[in-house]
Amino acid sequence: MIYAVGIGPGSTRTMTYEAMYAIENSDVVVGYKTYIDLIKDIIKDKEVVSNGMKQEIERVKKAVEIAKTGKTVAVISSGDAGVYGMAGLVLELAEHEDVKIISGVTASTAAAAVLGAPLMHDYCHISLSDLLTPLDLIYKRVELAAQGDFVMCIYNPRSNGRPDYLKNAFEIIKKYKHISTPVGIVKNAERENQKSVVCTLGTIDYDDIDMLSIVIVGNSSTYIKNNKIITRRGYKL
Amino acid sequence: MIYAVGIGPGSTRTMTYEAMYAIENSDVVVGYKTYIDLIKDIIKDKEVVSNGMKQEIERVKKAVEIAKTGKTVAVISSGDAGVYGMAGLVLELAEHEDVKIISGVTASTAAAAVLGAPLMHDYCHISLSDLLTPLDLIYKRVELAAQGDFVMCIYNPRSNGRPDYLKNAFEIIKKYKHISTPVGIVKNAERENQKSVVCTLGTIDYDDIDMLSIVIVGNSSTYIKNNKIITRRGYKL
Repeated sequence: MIYAVGIGPGSTRTMTYEAMYAIENSDVVVGYKTYIDLIKDIIKDKEVVSNGMKQEIERVKKAVEIAKTGKTVAVISSGDAGVYGMAGLVLELAEHEDVKIISGVTASTAAAAVLGAPLMHDYCHISLSDLLTPLDLIYKRVELAAQGDFVMCIYNPRSNGRPDYLKNAFEIIKKYKHISTPVGIVKNAERENQKSVVCTLGTIDYDDIDMLSIVIVGNSSTYIKNNKIITRRGYKL
Repeated sequence: MIYAVGIGPGSTRTMTYEAMYAIENSDVVVGYKTYIDLIKDIIKDKEVVSNGMKQEIERVKKAVEIAKTGKTVAVISSGDAGVYGMAGLVLELAEHEDVKIISGVTASTAAAAVLGAPLMHDYCHISLSDLLTPLDLIYKRVELAAQGDFVMCIYNPRSNGRPDYLKNAFEIIKKYKHISTPVGIVKNAERENQKSVVCTLGTIDYDDIDMLSIVIVGNSSTYIKNNKIITRRGYKL
């Protein structure tokens, strides 16, 4: 049996009961070491298999191998297991093992709760990582989403290896959205050292944004009140 | 103090610890009566204010009024409070009250977990309800999202009052996505009478889809394995 478990943004507070149950009922916990550390208090007596970034395939193959011996394995993702997480690889690589996907609070809605209520209307997720996706497709999606006035949640916005992708994306977005459009940045949502910034398309400072940040760009009905970002749903108040 | 609480898709199993804590620590629970019923076991000793659909503004005004008397109020949404939920109205209508938004597992990722792993790559949410949004903007978003090869999560897909919007949306989508593109439908995700269907753009049957359903349309890398829908992230396996 393999559980693909989304542990939520970080702390056990924001985990679901079902996720906790799946971990408690597993013999072995498998995950990226940063995420294993986030839940170390609840897995202290368990066998743990952890490895680094970009070793996802190896990690899931190991989990499948262990499940074949009859053990129950929890493969951990932060956020929701099915959103840029491990659920897909587990289903792709499992053969005859039972697999259960356990949802979690995903990074975008956790970040949104810190910022206010920016995701109250149609929105999209776009990852700016081009490790597995051609860069021209990423920019095409940015353009179409901006043109459709979607609220936009940008995952993996900026790393040392690609410091300019977010700036490039914002140049595209500014062709369609006004520079006064609210933008929120949350780093380490629901983890230690959580930090959030409320700014606009015109005033954003890229320097402090990294891979642990989520960037949310509002739509034409988004406004700022008491430093909170709110997207109007359309109610006549 | 007002908590805007996302209770997740339905059962208490899929609620976070933080959501449970907020409800337990509130004097009054305010919500749409269907959602109040979902959590009736955990609020049995509390004062409850519930009303029907389309009475959201009145409901939140009542919550603000109660908070002004010094009581702690939990305003309940299903899924995530900030995704087509009550978080926005609470922030819009609150004056000097403390407001805390509590995230939950949103309907799309809960539905995705039932279907497999369709949301592994960039995706969008589009609600087909035109109560608060012009229909031409909705169809424009459908067109742009299909053009960008986003995975698409369609909320409020079909009601008696608008039986044809989903069919119309699918006609637009078929201009860009192949008719063999996997489509999943989940009704009552994580609630009693959960029902799911795996089909394709070309084989979908609209008749059994209603307001309690979420429809997920894959991208060009989505496939079906053992009746599960999986969107490839791009790993070389």
